[in-house]
Amino acid sequence: MAKTRIYLDWNATAPLHPAARAAVVDALDLGGNPSSVHGEGRAARMLVEKARRQIATLVGGTAANVILTSGATEAANMVLTPDFRMGKSPLNVGHLYVSAIEHPAVREGGRFAADRKSEIAVLSSGQVDLAALKTQLVSHSSELGLPLVAVMLVNNETGVVQPVAEVAALVHAHGGLLVVDAVQAVGRMPVDIAALDADFLIVSSHKIGGPKGAGALVARGETLMPTPLIRGGGQEKGHRCGTENVSAIAGFGAAAEAMLVELEDRNSGIRALRDELETRMRQAAPDVVIYGADSPRVANTTFFGLPDMKAETGQIAFDLEGIALSAGSACSSGKVGKSHVLTAMGFDDKAGGLRISLGPSTTPEEIDLAVSVFQRIAGRRRVGGQAA
Amino acid sequence: MAKTRIYLDWNATAPLHPAARAAVVDALDLGGNPSSVHGEGRAARMLVEKARRQIATLVGGTAANVILTSGATEAANMVLTPDFRMGKSPLNVGHLYVSAIEHPAVREGGRFAADRKSEIAVLSSGQVDLAALKTQLVSHSSELGLPLVAVMLVNNETGVVQPVAEVAALVHAHGGLLVVDAVQAVGRMPVDIAALDADFLIVSSHKIGGPKGAGALVARGETLMPTPLIRGGGQEKGHRCGTENVSAIAGFGAAAEAMLVELEDRNSGIRALRDELETRMRQAAPDVVIYGADSPRVANTTFFGLPDMKAETGQIAFDLEGIALSAGSACSSGKVGKSHVLTAMGFDDKAGGLRISLGPSTTPEEIDLAVSVFQRIAGRRRVGGQAA
Repeated sequence: MAKTRIYLDWNATAPLHPAARAAVVDALDLGGNPSSVHGEGRAARMLVEKARRQIATLVGGTAANVILTSGATEAANMVLTPDFRMGKSPLNVGHLYVSAIEHPAVREGGRFAADRKSEIAVLSSGQVDLAALKTQLVSHSSELGLPLVAVMLVNNETGVVQPVAEVAALVHAHGGLLVVDAVQAVGRMPVDIAALDADFLIVSSHKIGGPKGAGALVARGETLMPTPLIRGGGQEKGHRCGTENVSAIAGFGAAAEAMLVELEDRNSGIRALRDELETRMRQAAPDVVIYGADSPRVANTTFFGLPDMKAETGQIAFDLEGIALSAGSACSSGKVGKSHVLTAMGFDDKAGGLRISLGPSTTPEEIDLAVSVFQRIAGRRRVGGQAA
Repeated sequence: MAKTRIYLDWNATAPLHPAARAAVVDALDLGGNPSSVHGEGRAARMLVEKARRQIATLVGGTAANVILTSGATEAANMVLTPDFRMGKSPLNVGHLYVSAIEHPAVREGGRFAADRKSEIAVLSSGQVDLAALKTQLVSHSSELGLPLVAVMLVNNETGVVQPVAEVAALVHAHGGLLVVDAVQAVGRMPVDIAALDADFLIVSSHKIGGPKGAGALVARGETLMPTPLIRGGGQEKGHRCGTENVSAIAGFGAAAEAMLVELEDRNSGIRALRDELETRMRQAAPDVVIYGADSPRVANTTFFGLPDMKAETGQIAFDLEGIALSAGSACSSGKVGKSHVLTAMGFDDKAGGLRISLGPSTTPEEIDLAVSVFQRIAGRRRVGGQAA
C-alpha cells in the first residue's frame, strides 16, 4: 500500500462517523441484554429504542414500524417473501418483480422460487423502464396472489435516482406492494417513506457512517408485515428474533441523526467536488464514459468506463497508487465481474465500470490527487496500449 | 438502581472481555468492506479470517467450515431446515426432533412446518431422555427424508450438561443429523465438535465476552450444508450473504481465543464461588430448590426456586437490591413467564425459577453480597407471607 491512502469507495462502506463511533463504544461498555428486566437490561433497551426513533426520523417513518436487522441483506431476504400477514390473516404474494439493476441482496435474495420472479427492464439512462413495468403489472395473474415490486431509490453503482414515486403509483394502481431499497439514498438525498408511497423501505447502517452489522426494514404501517425470517425469542415483536446488536444499533441511530444535519449543505459540497472530478476526467480522457451522467444522480457517485481498460485492472492500478475505489459493487466477495447494471443499461461493455464514491470528509486535495492518478492511468493506457 | 450493581446474569449476556473490546475498536477504526479488492478491503478481510480461525479453534473445528452469522438465533434458523445440500445434490430432512429444553431460537426457530417437528422428552435431572429419543428415531419414517436432531450441550437456564456424545451415537445409528447448540458451553467447558460427533455446532459471541451481533454455524465437514437463509452477494461462500460485521466478528474471535486460555483454572475458581453460593443459600433457606443440582453442570450457573415466591417478583426484588439476575432466559423480550425448562423437567411449579450466572470477574465479595440479599428476600417471604 502507498503511504497516503485516499478512500473514494464510500458506497461500499463509509468510514465510521465520529458520532456513531462514540455511540458504539458507549453501548459496548454499557453491556446488558435488552430483553433482561433488570437495570442493565433496561438501559440497553433504552439505547435500542432511541436508535429506532432516530432511524424512523431518517426516512419519515414511525419508530413502531422499524424492524431492526443485521443489515440490509437480511432485511431484503425478510421482506421479499410470498408470505405476508395483514394483522393475523395471511396475505399471499404471487410474483416478485425486481428491477434489473437491484443490488444482489434484492436480485438474488428472498424467498421466491425462480419461476415466481421476473426482472424489470432498465433504460440506457440508468432508470427503470416504467412502460415495461406497466406491461408486466397489466399481465400479472393474481391467481397466486398480489404482485410485489422491488425498485431501489438510488443505484449503488451509477448513483442514478429511480422514479420511485411513479413506480409506486403504477404498483398501487395494480393492487401491488412496493419495496424500496433506500440503502444508497439515505444521507445522500431526502428520503420520506410517505412521499415515496413505498410499503417498505430497506436501509443500512454502514453505508451512512454507522457500523456494520445493523440495518432495518421500515414498514409503512404496522398491520401488513412479511412472515419472519429469523424466529425464536420474541424480539422485535416477533418480526426478527435474536439478541439485539445493541452497539451497532446505537451507532446506526447516531449516524442516522448525523445524516439529517445539514444534508443539503453537505451534499452540495460533495456535488461540487464530484462535478469537478468529472470535468477534469473528461478533459484528461475525452473518451471516458460516465454512466448515467444525464440522469438525476446523488451527489457523491461517478461510475465510469475507459475504453480498452478492464475494470479489474483499473481498480488494481488505482489501488497501487493509493486510491481505494470499486469495480462495480463490493458485495460479491472479492469477485470482480461484468457489471449487471451496465448490462441492464444496454452497454455491451465487457470491460465493466469503475466507481468513485465520495463522502463528507472527502477533500479538494484528495480529488486533485485522484485526478492526477486518473491522468496517469488513462495516459499509460493510451501510450502503452495496455491498462497499467 | 442501587449505587453498587452486581451483575450475576452472565448467561443472558457477558460483559465485554477487554481483549474483545480492543479487537472491536481496532476493527471499527480500520473500516473497509471485506469484499472490496483494494487495500482497505483486504485489511478488513484479514480480520474476518483471523477471527474465523480463532472461532474454529474454540470448538476444535476447521476455519473453512465456520459460517459467520449475526448471532446464534440466525445460525439456528439457518441450520434447522428441511433442505440441505450434499455438495451439489439436494438432501432432504423429513422431521426435526428438538429437546424440550432447547433455547427458543431452536425450539421456535427454523424452517420446518409444525407437523414436521417433535419434542424430545427431558428427565427431572434436566438431561434429555435418551430412551425417548431412541423410540422416536426407531419410529422415524424416512419417507420425507432423514431425521434431524437438535440437543443443546449446556442448558441456558439450569447449566446442566447434556449427554451429547450418546445422543450423537443414537442419531448416527439411525442415519440422522445432529445439531448442537453450544452457546452456553463454550468458554465454560471444553468443546470439541469431533469428540461430540456433532454435524453442526451453534456458537454465540456475546455469551463469552464478545460483542453482540456475531455468531457462527460450525459444520463438521464442508460438503453437507443447509440451504442458505440469507442470500444475495456471495459472502461466506454463498452460505450467508451480506457485508460481514467485521468489528463484531473480530471481537468474537478475540473472545474465543481468550476463553481457551486457562479454561480449567478459571472455571474451577468460578465453580468454588458458585458452590459456596449454593451452600449458603441452602443454609439461609432450607426449602430452596436448586434445579439440576445432581446432574453434571457447568461451573457458573445456579437455577433455583423458592416456594411461594414468583420468579418475576424475586427478580425485581434482587434488582432493587442492586443484583442483576434472571427469571429463566432473557430471550423473550422482557416477558417473564413460566419456564419451559422446568415444565419439561416435570416441575409443576407455577412460580418459576431464578437464575444466577457467574463470570470470570465475579468476586467473593459479590457472592457475599448476593447471599445477604438472598437471605433478606427469603426471610421477608417467610415473615411477611409475601415475596418482597
